[in-house]
Amino acid sequence: MPNVVTAAMIVIGDEILSGRTKDKNIGHLADIMTAIGIDLKEVRVVADEEDEIAATVNALRNRYDYVFTTGGIGPTHDDITADSVAKAFGVPCDYDEKAMALLANSYDARGIEFNDARKRMARMPVGAAHIDNPVSVAPGFRIGNVHVMAGVPSIFQAMLDNVVPTLRTGAKLLSATVPCPHGEGIIGGPLAEIQKAHPETIIGSYPKYLDGTFRTDLVVRARSREALDAARQAIEAMVAGLAEAQ
Amino acid sequence: MPNVVTAAMIVIGDEILSGRTKDKNIGHLADIMTAIGIDLKEVRVVADEEDEIAATVNALRNRYDYVFTTGGIGPTHDDITADSVAKAFGVPCDYDEKAMALLANSYDARGIEFNDARKRMARMPVGAAHIDNPVSVAPGFRIGNVHVMAGVPSIFQAMLDNVVPTLRTGAKLLSATVPCPHGEGIIGGPLAEIQKAHPETIIGSYPKYLDGTFRTDLVVRARSREALDAARQAIEAMVAGLAEAQ
Repeated sequence: MPNVVTAAMIVIGDEILSGRTKDKNIGHLADIMTAIGIDLKEVRVVADEEDEIAATVNALRNRYDYVFTTGGIGPTHDDITADSVAKAFGVPCDYDEKAMALLANSYDARGIEFNDARKRMARMPVGAAHIDNPVSVAPGFRIGNVHVMAGVPSIFQAMLDNVVPTLRTGAKLLSATVPCPHGEGIIGGPLAEIQKAHPETIIGSYPKYLDGTFRTDLVVRARSREALDAARQAIEAMVAGLAEAQ
Repeated sequence: MPNVVTAAMIVIGDEILSGRTKDKNIGHLADIMTAIGIDLKEVRVVADEEDEIAATVNALRNRYDYVFTTGGIGPTHDDITADSVAKAFGVPCDYDEKAMALLANSYDARGIEFNDARKRMARMPVGAAHIDNPVSVAPGFRIGNVHVMAGVPSIFQAMLDNVVPTLRTGAKLLSATVPCPHGEGIIGGPLAEIQKAHPETIIGSYPKYLDGTFRTDLVVRARSREALDAARQAIEAMVAGLAEAQ
């Protein structure tokens, strides 16, 4: 049996649901997970509501190996991720001593007041471990299998870079793409046959509609190189056969 | 009480979770819902797995006024949205007579064979109503409060344009943005006070990290113009006061 590691993502923020901000973090996390051999199985975008966030964290952390959250860890009143995650784990949310020291030093060095709003960024569920933030100091945190990170893409990406080496990874899902000049209506039948003959692979068909005609990218995914190559060759032969038939 | 109408979205497709395709439909649906006065409350991205899709449809259709899905309605074996939605509603999924006629005519007019793969696109839960597809004919469908649409952005957008006039809409959530040259650490305290004093509004703070400094957009949302204006003015006064204090 291949070694499969699963993950889910929670994107936290009214601004994504209102359309005001267009999410850029889902695609980035998906790319990184695929690259390191973790299967991203589900993403949820939820509003800035404590009970909603807590319920979502609990639903997903019990189901997947890892959960990654983005958003809601800044200094303003609408940043409620730390409280919500603490609630999910049934632990208090409090000022973390090490985070307080980090932030106090950073603001002191810049001659900026370490006021109450900024102190909010040092709050985390009791027992959480830091996730370093090389961009703007205020740390993310991990509690259990839940990794809580910033929503600003540059900070999220930097935090994730620090998290990746700590993750258990599975067998990478290898993939190969066969570009196909035909629409799905032409290749649908033979492609389904190929999928049936290659059950160890996952074959996807992704249509592109350009200039009034459909083309497709046919993508094979598999954990073994042999299975991947066999299905890829079958697809290439199918596409070549269609070209000759025309 | 303001008239609130809620919605959720289900993005269906392994290609989004693998990072291969970057979703463009969440932001578009969010923009349209906000514009017409429907609150998008939750989005879920799920894999191409029938039970997973059916369970998600049932979880969300019972909770929100409307559910919108994108993806998985093409002619290939990995297009399983129609079967999954039929399963969620406990009805058979079958060839729809009107969709069969539409597609047969369209392929006939273009001299293209209406083969088994293409016929798959005419399958829908028994009792579903069509959602017209002006781009490539194969219809989406509505069953109950669930609207099933294509994943290709141009087709999704065209289908959604046809759905919008059929939706019951609520009081629009008005919004106003106050650009602020300060980071959240400075405005966090006073902004929380303003939120407390204006409970009919939702005030969000959205940091931008550019060239090594933080700025923020402060966004007020409210269903009444009066409430919106009062909170906006309080925020503008706060930002002006901070500028003078420097």
